[in-house]
Amino acid sequence: MTKRSYRLGDIASELGAELRGDPDTDIGGLATLQAAAPGQIAFLANPSYARYLADTRASAVIVSPSVADQCSTNVLLLDNPYLGYARLSHWFDPAPVPRPGVHESAVVDPSAQVSQSASIGPQAVVEAEAVIGDHVVIGAGSIIGARCTVGEHSVLRPRVTLAHDIVLGKRCHILSGAVIGSDGFGFANEKGAWHRIAQLGRVILGDDVEVGANTTIDRGALDDTVIGNGVKLDNLIQIAHNVSIGDHSAMAAMVGIAGSTRVGSHCVFGGQSGVAGHLTIGDQVHLTGMTLVSNDIAEPGVYSSGTSADTNRQWRKNAVRFRQLDAMARRLKELEKKIQG
Amino acid sequence: MTKRSYRLGDIASELGAELRGDPDTDIGGLATLQAAAPGQIAFLANPSYARYLADTRASAVIVSPSVADQCSTNVLLLDNPYLGYARLSHWFDPAPVPRPGVHESAVVDPSAQVSQSASIGPQAVVEAEAVIGDHVVIGAGSIIGARCTVGEHSVLRPRVTLAHDIVLGKRCHILSGAVIGSDGFGFANEKGAWHRIAQLGRVILGDDVEVGANTTIDRGALDDTVIGNGVKLDNLIQIAHNVSIGDHSAMAAMVGIAGSTRVGSHCVFGGQSGVAGHLTIGDQVHLTGMTLVSNDIAEPGVYSSGTSADTNRQWRKNAVRFRQLDAMARRLKELEKKIQG
Amino acid sequence: MTKRSYRLGDIASELGAELRGDPDTDIGGLATLQAAAPGQIAFLANPSYARYLADTRASAVIVSPSVADQCSTNVLLLDNPYLGYARLSHWFDPAPVPRPGVHESAVVDPSAQVSQSASIGPQAVVEAEAVIGDHVVIGAGSIIGARCTVGEHSVLRPRVTLAHDIVLGKRCHILSGAVIGSDGFGFANEKGAWHRIAQLGRVILGDDVEVGANTTIDRGALDDTVIGNGVKLDNLIQIAHNVSIGDHSAMAAMVGIAGSTRVGSHCVFGGQSGVAGHLTIGDQVHLTGMTLVSNDIAEPGVYSSGTSADTNRQWRKNAVRFRQLDAMARRLKELEKKIQG
Repeated sequence: MTKRSYRLGDIASELGAELRGDPDTDIGGLATLQAAAPGQIAFLANPSYARYLADTRASAVIVSPSVADQCSTNVLLLDNPYLGYARLSHWFDPAPVPRPGVHESAVVDPSAQVSQSASIGPQAVVEAEAVIGDHVVIGAGSIIGARCTVGEHSVLRPRVTLAHDIVLGKRCHILSGAVIGSDGFGFANEKGAWHRIAQLGRVILGDDVEVGANTTIDRGALDDTVIGNGVKLDNLIQIAHNVSIGDHSAMAAMVGIAGSTRVGSHCVFGGQSGVAGHLTIGDQVHLTGMTLVSNDIAEPGVYSSGTSADTNRQWRKNAVRFRQLDAMARRLKELEKKIQG
Repeated sequence: MTKRSYRLGDIASELGAELRGDPDTDIGGLATLQAAAPGQIAFLANPSYARYLADTRASAVIVSPSVADQCSTNVLLLDNPYLGYARLSHWFDPAPVPRPGVHESAVVDPSAQVSQSASIGPQAVVEAEAVIGDHVVIGAGSIIGARCTVGEHSVLRPRVTLAHDIVLGKRCHILSGAVIGSDGFGFANEKGAWHRIAQLGRVILGDDVEVGANTTIDRGALDDTVIGNGVKLDNLIQIAHNVSIGDHSAMAAMVGIAGSTRVGSHCVFGGQSGVAGHLTIGDQVHLTGMTLVSNDIAEPGVYSSGTSADTNRQWRKNAVRFRQLDAMARRLKELEKKIQG
Repeated sequence: MTKRSYRLGDIASELGAELRGDPDTDIGGLATLQAAAPGQIAFLANPSYARYLADTRASAVIVSPSVADQCSTNVLLLDNPYLGYARLSHWFDPAPVPRPGVHESAVVDPSAQVSQSASIGPQAVVEAEAVIGDHVVIGAGSIIGARCTVGEHSVLRPRVTLAHDIVLGKRCHILSGAVIGSDGFGFANEKGAWHRIAQLGRVILGDDVEVGANTTIDRGALDDTVIGNGVKLDNLIQIAHNVSIGDHSAMAAMVGIAGSTRVGSHCVFGGQSGVAGHLTIGDQVHLTGMTLVSNDIAEPGVYSSGTSADTNRQWRKNAVRFRQLDAMARRLKELEKKIQG
């Protein structure tokens, strides 16, 4: 792994942070307050970790101005230290940076347009009339279907699949195993047998979209499936056909969004939550983990369903009663009548 | 994308529909009633969209006879307009049609039998003694294990994996990232450590089976995992070892079926539902989304579990009470005794 | 498929079993008691199948001493017959055994170190400075990122992805479609937009780890994601960044573990269960299927949440009442006051 190190003063000016300390300090890594060694920079984003400030061995810490006095080392002052950490993290990313050019084992259709600054990895496939923008990285074993467009600076990690006619904006980041443009799950039933409906729509991703590992996004049946700018999808998510997701919404792993549902902007969905089909979910809706949504949600806010773990012994007693709940409610009402009557 | 257009009279006769209107109308696309432009054909399957019939710009609409009078344009009459749409959709499918033959970058074992009408995509692998039927399409980067059989007219999209000794019927449609024949999750425990059990069974898919993107179907431990004719599996589904699924059952995304469970025919399982292992589920059982099945189900019908989303504020109050449910039931009974006593 | 057969006496001595019967019996296969044909060996692990002992056509049965008298055929006596079956199963595994060497279609970086006894399958990619140990199998189409280490006797099935800097112990078994080392889902929010945080940590797998098909394990943000020795993960599981899982824990399909959660040793998690982030789960914690854990669990034991399937008709009545549960509890308390008052 390449050793990299930077001058603290350069880091401060790049992040737009006020530096209190020695600008010539050499910073060779990024770590948590607890784990940092001398020569590393740490950050304090969560106030509950402030207790680690006094004893950190880090050579510098990114903090908000309010806690700067608690640091015994160099500090970089930022209103949003976590954002500072996010930006700085890329300086220390050990991920290999692929060279521009097409690997000799890749198969690129002669009719595809591949920017000279793009990198096409080993064993990749780029099919007819695909357009690969400037500085795009297509990872090893990835497959780019016919007539896809991949916007500049987008990165596809190894073994991504784009079916035909998929549009990716700029700076998208698609993780390994993701499948974008798989056929939507549409069938017509005749006498009990299912007849497949060809899926004629596309998938359109905006700019700065993240698609997690082994996540699947189906193409639309007639119209397109549309993922807004800045949307972040974690691993193993299912986005069904004709779904639309508004800008800057984020979904944790294993979320499922059924067909034709419209999700607003700035939503945050917890892991394993699910939204039924043909619903409309407004902006700024948050779902806690494993929540099931089966009706429209118009108002911003936090929504939940289900129950959380109890000992099996206790749970069994209560779960049995769930099946008697309506009867209990009726009995309760009956009692109330008797007493008030 | 190739422009295609068809004569309305030809469409009518191919679908077996009665045409009311001009058979020479040129139809160049398929769209929803709301989105259709002149030159396109639309359909009305869901009666709640009938209000769009009057104003549609479509050049023709597939409808059932009962609403034909509400159309101001050419109509094709069918008892099942949705089925007509399903059939017609394939006429307008922009997916590239691969040419027969083995791509020069594919690796095909000399002992494999590949039909001359089959297409083996770039970077694909076909291992020893596999049998690839007539008109089969093996997508780019797909891997067909030793001794697999892929029935005629089956289509494997890019990057599908079949492990060894897998049997696919005719006209199966396997989406990208699917893994068929992964080892079942079987271990023997000795003093706390798990010892892997080799999975000796196969996976047998009937005819007309759909397997969604990144769905996994495990091979059997001793006997086979069996998927019936016409079964449709959406994306990210898990079918464990030795499961059997009856003909024409359909499962939405993210369903999990645990080991050795038998699912009947014509079942429909909603997304994220799960069935525990070693159960028997009869025919025509429907599960709503995120339902957990932990006992046999013999009777046809619709089954559900869980709760659906509420505001987090309300939900917290109620979820806390779930843990007191048994106690509440006892208190209720106590009150009833006192009052009736 | 190669025919294999073994002498019963040899099987007994290899398994350390006491043989009652004819050591020269020829055993050509392994089957369940019910399905076994003459020439096959079966086993009895689950006492509820003891009724099949009398009539089995198997030529030998592995049983515990307590039921040996009920067998009419040759018996192998073992205290843990299921373990005996597990060990014997590998003798009859029809999976092709790849030959050592690098397939001519594979792309191996010159700086990678590949043991001469390792097998690198067709269309595989091994990137710079990766280290592939003795007797390792890298399946077709798998991608091994830069500087990965794969311990001896580990087997990667076709189409596995290891990102860069991943460490696998000895005898790991990674199924098709698994992605190990995908970027953790970490973003800093600024004015509603998400900024990606580079994920600088690694994934470290101990020895004897199983990773199921299409399972994803994210690399750590700063520290590593750590999977202990003997951990068994089924298909379509999500392990988020900085999770640690203790030795010999097992998780069924579709489990999700959110970021930074610590899971103890010898845990068993049922399918589709989920654990929220930043939690600590102790040793020997069992979760039943679809359980949601949103708090720490310190005590060993079985834990559950949710409800299980009921007819939709009944369920609807009860699920509606769940939303009134807090109100019901208050009304109940009110009644109690009135009656006791």
